[in-house]
Amino acid sequence: MQKFDVSILGFGTVGAGVYKILTGNHDDIAHREDLDLRIRKILVRDFEHEPNLGLADMSYFTTDFSEIVSDPDTRIIVECIGGVEPARTYILKALDAGKTVVTSNKEVISKHWPEFEAAAKNTGAGLYMEATVGGGIPILKTIIDSMQANNIERIMGIINGTTNYILTNMAESGVSFSEALSQAQKLGYAEANPTADIEGFDATYKLSILSSMSFHAHMPVDVIYREGITRLSSEDFDFAKKLGYEIKLLAIGKKNGNNIEVRVHPTMLPKTHPLAAVRGVFNAIFVTGHAVGDIMLYGQGAGQMPTASAVVSDVIYACHSDGHHKYMTFRNEEKMTDEVNLVENFRCRYCIRVNVVDEPGTMAAISEVFAKHNVSLKDVLQLGAPDNGVSSRITFMTHEANEFDIRSALSDIGKLTCVHAIESMIRAEA
Amino acid sequence: MQKFDVSILGFGTVGAGVYKILTGNHDDIAHREDLDLRIRKILVRDFEHEPNLGLADMSYFTTDFSEIVSDPDTRIIVECIGGVEPARTYILKALDAGKTVVTSNKEVISKHWPEFEAAAKNTGAGLYMEATVGGGIPILKTIIDSMQANNIERIMGIINGTTNYILTNMAESGVSFSEALSQAQKLGYAEANPTADIEGFDATYKLSILSSMSFHAHMPVDVIYREGITRLSSEDFDFAKKLGYEIKLLAIGKKNGNNIEVRVHPTMLPKTHPLAAVRGVFNAIFVTGHAVGDIMLYGQGAGQMPTASAVVSDVIYACHSDGHHKYMTFRNEEKMTDEVNLVENFRCRYCIRVNVVDEPGTMAAISEVFAKHNVSLKDVLQLGAPDNGVSSRITFMTHEANEFDIRSALSDIGKLTCVHAIESMIRAEA
Repeated sequence: MQKFDVSILGFGTVGAGVYKILTGNHDDIAHREDLDLRIRKILVRDFEHEPNLGLADMSYFTTDFSEIVSDPDTRIIVECIGGVEPARTYILKALDAGKTVVTSNKEVISKHWPEFEAAAKNTGAGLYMEATVGGGIPILKTIIDSMQANNIERIMGIINGTTNYILTNMAESGVSFSEALSQAQKLGYAEANPTADIEGFDATYKLSILSSMSFHAHMPVDVIYREGITRLSSEDFDFAKKLGYEIKLLAIGKKNGNNIEVRVHPTMLPKTHPLAAVRGVFNAIFVTGHAVGDIMLYGQGAGQMPTASAVVSDVIYACHSDGHHKYMTFRNEEKMTDEVNLVENFRCRYCIRVNVVDEPGTMAAISEVFAKHNVSLKDVLQLGAPDNGVSSRITFMTHEANEFDIRSALSDIGKLTCVHAIESMIRAEA
Repeated sequence: MQKFDVSILGFGTVGAGVYKILTGNHDDIAHREDLDLRIRKILVRDFEHEPNLGLADMSYFTTDFSEIVSDPDTRIIVECIGGVEPARTYILKALDAGKTVVTSNKEVISKHWPEFEAAAKNTGAGLYMEATVGGGIPILKTIIDSMQANNIERIMGIINGTTNYILTNMAESGVSFSEALSQAQKLGYAEANPTADIEGFDATYKLSILSSMSFHAHMPVDVIYREGITRLSSEDFDFAKKLGYEIKLLAIGKKNGNNIEVRVHPTMLPKTHPLAAVRGVFNAIFVTGHAVGDIMLYGQGAGQMPTASAVVSDVIYACHSDGHHKYMTFRNEEKMTDEVNLVENFRCRYCIRVNVVDEPGTMAAISEVFAKHNVSLKDVLQLGAPDNGVSSRITFMTHEANEFDIRSALSDIGKLTCVHAIESMIRAEA
C-alpha cells in the first residue's frame, strides 16, 4: 500500500473538516483506495486564536511554513487558508518544491491560476481545486473527466449559497432584502461584512474558474460582468411570481465559436427550469454540452464536511495521479487574446418595470424608444393598481436583445417626461 | 502526442454516436487532451441489416471479431452490442488479450462483472462502464472519483427514461397506463416489447452496477427486489396528487453498517423532493454521503449522443490511465457473504388504499390488523366520494414499517369481511 503524507495549511472550518475525514475514514480509504493517507503537519497562524486546536495532537501544529515546505515526507499540501496572501506565496513555494497542492481557495485560484499552473508544470507537481466551486458538488471533475468529448456551450450556476438563501427567503416570505440579509447573518449564512457575497464577487471568483475550465480559455475575474442582489425589492419578486418566474443570482458563461460571455447578475428563470427549484443554501450548476445535452449537478455548496469531502477527494485523486498529473490547456494566455473574443454586448431577454405618468400616449412613447434601439417586446403588462391615480406601472418583457441597446433604451426612456422612474431591470434566461 | 487506436463492436445507435464524436471532435480532443484517437475497426453482424454503414468508409467494417482482438494496433475496444452474448465472450477475449474495454452494456456488466474484473486485473487492461447507468450523466465517475472520502449511505435514482416518461404522462395528463405506454411506443421511447423497461428489469441491471460501486460490495441482479409500473392506475396518481406526492419508479440502495438493501419499485415522493421534479425521459440520481450530504445529478439517461458522450469520456479517461488502471474492490465475492447482510425485510413508509364496506366498525377492524402487525399509521384519509353507498375508499399512510409486517398485515386485511379489495400499495420515501 502506498503511503502519502499530507500537510494542511490553515485549521479553520475546512482544514478541520479535512483532518476529521483523513483521520476518521483512514481505514475505509486504505481498504477501498489502497492508500495510507497520513497527516504530517498543520500550519496555524498562532496558538492563541485557533478554535480547532483541540481536535488534534499538539505535535502536528506549527506556525512555520518553511517547516512544511522543506519536509521531505510531505508530498501533498492542502491549502485552506483562504484569501490571497499568504496563500499565494505558500502555494507557489509548495509547487516550486514539487509538492502537489489541493486547495479550496477560490479567490487565490481565480486571481493567480496561470502562475500556479506554470509552476506546477515546471516541477511536475499536481494542482487540484474541486472544492473551490460548488463545495461538495463535483462540478470541476465532471467538466474535466466526464465532458471531454463535448464542446461546452453554456454554463449557468447558482454558486453562492448566501445569496440563494436570501433570494429564497425574499421569494417565499415576502421579506425585504435587508430583512432577509439580517436573518441570513443571524443564522450564520452571511458574514458580518456580506459584500463579497451580496455584491457577487464570490460568484465571479467561482465563475472565473468554472468558465476557464469549461471553455479551455482563461477568463480572468475582471472581465466578468458583475451585478449583485442588493437592488432587488419585494416588488420584483411579486412581479416575477405573477409572470411565472423565479429570481436567482446566476453565474452564466456562454461560448459560440471564439465568442465567450461571462456574467453574474440576478436572473429571471421560468419556474419549470431545474435551477428554479434550487432553494436555500443549496447550489446547482446546469451545463450544456453539444453531445451530452443538458446536465445539472446539485448539492451543498459550502459547509465544513461537504467542502472537506471535495478536498479529500482531490487528495485521493492526486495520489493515484502521482507522477502523471494532468494540466489544463488554455487557448489564451493571462490576457484575453484574438483567439478568444470577449462578448460584452451579450444578448438575453430583459424584464423592465417602469413607473409612468398615467396618461394617454405614455405606452406609445416608451414603445417607440424600445423600437428605435432594436428592442422587440414580447409581453407588456400593466400589472398592479395605479398608486395614486397619476402614476402607474408597466412591466415589459423583451425578446432577446443586445445589452448595449437595452442600456441606451433605458437611458432614453428615463428622460421621457411621461416616465417617473425605471424601477427595475432584470435579465432573463431560458 | 500519444496515439490510441479504438475499435468499436456494434454499430447501432450508440456505436454510431461514438464514431461521430471520435471523428467529428478529433481535433478538439487532440488539442485539449493531447491524444490522437483513431478509429481502427468496426465490428458489424453482417453487411445487410446495418442502418449506419453509410456513416463510415467501408474499409473500417468487419464481421470477424478475431480480426479486432488479434490486431496489435487496437488498444481500446468499445462494446456497444448490448445483451449478454456475444458481448460477454468478446469482452472476456478482449480483456484476456490485454485490451482495455469501454462498454455501454448494462445487462452484461450487471450479470458478469466479477469475471470481467478478474480478467482485467490479470492482464492489466482497463474496464470502463460510465454509459451503463444514467446515459450521459457522470454518476459512476462521481461515485468512484469524487465521493471516495464518503461512506455512501443511500442512493435513489430515476434510471429508466421509458418508465419516467410513462409516469410523467400519467401524472400530468391523467391517462391510463396502457394509453401512456402506447404513446411512449409511438414516440420511440418504449420498445415494441416493453417488458425490460416496464417490469423494472432494466432498472435492476443499472442498480446492480450503481449499488455495487456505491457500497463496494457486489450486488447481483437477482438479489434486488423488483416491482414494475404495470399495476399503477390513474386513481393512484389522483390520490398521490391530493396527498402532495409524485409517483416515480425508483432504484433504491441503502447501507447501514454491513446491512444493505436494494430495490426497484414505484415510489411516492413528496413534491418538494428534487427527484419529484424530474420529468419525461430525463434521469436523475440522488446520492447521500456521510460527508458531502445530499447531491443529485440530472440529465439525459439515454439517446445516441448523451450515451456516446459517456463512452468517449471513458475512452479518454482510459488513455490517460494507460498502464495504471484502477480496479474496484468489493467486500464480498460473487455470492453474498457474511460481510454483507442483504436486508430483504427493509423499512419504509407505505401508502395503502383499501376499498371497504361502508359500515360502522370497518375502520376499527382494519386499524386493529395494522396494530397487530406493528404497523403504525401516520395519516388516514377517506378521500373520494363513496362509489355506490355500500363501498368506500380509505387511504392509509403508515409510519416507517417493516416490509414483511406490511405483507402479513395486507394478507390479513384482505380476508376481513368488511374489505372488498386492497386496491393499491405504494411504498414511500422521504
